[in-house]
Amino acid sequence: MKILVIGASGTVGRAVVAALAGRHEVIRAGRGHGDYRVDITRDDSVEDLFREIGPLDAIVSAAGGLHFGPLATMRPADFNIGLQDKLLGQVRLALLGQHVLRDGGSITLTTGIVAEEPILQGANATAVNASVEGFVRAAAIELPRGLRINAVSPTMLTESQAAYGPLFPGFEPVPAERVTLAYVRSVEGPQTGRVYRVWQ
Amino acid sequence: MKILVIGASGTVGRAVVAALAGRHEVIRAGRGHGDYRVDITRDDSVEDLFREIGPLDAIVSAAGGLHFGPLATMRPADFNIGLQDKLLGQVRLALLGQHVLRDGGSITLTTGIVAEEPILQGANATAVNASVEGFVRAAAIELPRGLRINAVSPTMLTESQAAYGPLFPGFEPVPAERVTLAYVRSVEGPQTGRVYRVWQ
Repeated sequence: MKILVIGASGTVGRAVVAALAGRHEVIRAGRGHGDYRVDITRDDSVEDLFREIGPLDAIVSAAGGLHFGPLATMRPADFNIGLQDKLLGQVRLALLGQHVLRDGGSITLTTGIVAEEPILQGANATAVNASVEGFVRAAAIELPRGLRINAVSPTMLTESQAAYGPLFPGFEPVPAERVTLAYVRSVEGPQTGRVYRVWQ
Repeated sequence: MKILVIGASGTVGRAVVAALAGRHEVIRAGRGHGDYRVDITRDDSVEDLFREIGPLDAIVSAAGGLHFGPLATMRPADFNIGLQDKLLGQVRLALLGQHVLRDGGSITLTTGIVAEEPILQGANATAVNASVEGFVRAAAIELPRGLRINAVSPTMLTESQAAYGPLFPGFEPVPAERVTLAYVRSVEGPQTGRVYRVWQ
């Protein structure tokens, strides 16, 4: 398969590329690194990328920024950061990407445990991740030509524990390598409309 | 209680006002009708409203627009309609409204059955409603002073069946009057972080 990975230089993205590269042609893209540069918050940037590299068999997104901060001082503009980046950015990859996928191709987006298990200062993260999961459920019933769409919801990564551990008290971390299994399952498996939770 | 109802002239809003008005002081607001005019997509409009009428015991939102249309032709800008209106609009009411609520006050937002049961042409609606429910789950764990936040998720209303029935094949409608019970439960009851589903 010819697979595009967006956010390929992040902790999850690097592991996903490593897991897929042995069996597939993997193209790495990101805001600042990779084979191609793309800004998922802009239609023209995403359309330019697809025009250059399409057609594809799979699109994998491990990209998107969020706002973290206390609810008491959160402003609507803060909340819109995650809406425009991790939510609409990933939806943009799906809406524009559906047209460059070959029959039977797949889209895999990334959410996170906070979609279902809120943390302090995480109202934007919970809302954005829950929304991406909703989009996946709804888009799956409309995609034609055997196209599929799924999400992967990781918990905190072992590799990120030093940075994010205090935000996730008592959350059991998982290694990025284990998280990549869910992406492989989405890309190479038969299912659609699924959220693969990498936590219990 | 002094209760603000936004979207008070809609089918749900009118019924909610009728259910609450006997026992409480109810202020009706909306984009084009009501005691006060408010545009929930603008900070200044919402802040002006709260400055004029606060402090409050409860804020009830039955407002917010969505985009409906086929996934195949949906553009990111279409999808952003619901993000800016029903999602960020309601989140704005909560973020700005938390500061004008008296101790023990409540915020009640409106989602809908498509959050969990997708329909054709409803990708934006599912994503937006799921996101509002996520926001409610997360905001509930941070609100101080006994403040509460819940969502009501109605299915199709009997009153809306003529207009929306074809979008909801086999969905059992419920009368608006029954939906209002969930709003009363949220405003007058003790719970927080709940999504009251008015369907099964």
